[in-house]
Amino acid sequence: MTARVLIRPKEGILDPSGQAVERALTSLGFQGVSEVKVGRLVELEVDDPARVPEMCERLLANPLIEDYEVVVLEDVAG
Amino acid sequence: MTARVLIRPKEGILDPSGQAVERALTSLGFQGVSEVKVGRLVELEVDDPARVPEMCERLLANPLIEDYEVVVLEDVAG
Repeated sequence: MTARVLIRPKEGILDPSGQAVERALTSLGFQGVSEVKVGRLVELEVDDPARVPEMCERLLANPLIEDYEVVVLEDVAG
Repeated sequence: MTARVLIRPKEGILDPSGQAVERALTSLGFQGVSEVKVGRLVELEVDDPARVPEMCERLLANPLIEDYEVVVLEDVAG
């Protein structure tokens, strides 16, 4: 099965990448952009999706400063 | 409105981060993990979600080597 993991900076944690992207978008002339957060996306095929949260805790995310969300996707192929 | 952008290495483009994560998960004892892809997640508040693809082309993604997917989320608050 395919698991999608969305990893984001925790609320209240400084997100310099997000701030940089927000400034850059504004400089490029995009108006009305705010609250930009930059995180990571990990997608993987796993036999047992129930183990993905443990993978996040141990490797994929830094639970001190990041939140993660696991979405198990229906397999479209095969 | 909140827009979520999922950015992934294009099919066929080398993804060394994905390969490293896959090896690391296997080393940690997680079995049955394959096809690991590491990408980026950008979430932002925008007045006009129709402009987000242009933001991707110009700043958020590198269209030569990355695919992006824009999802417009319902505002849950306010």
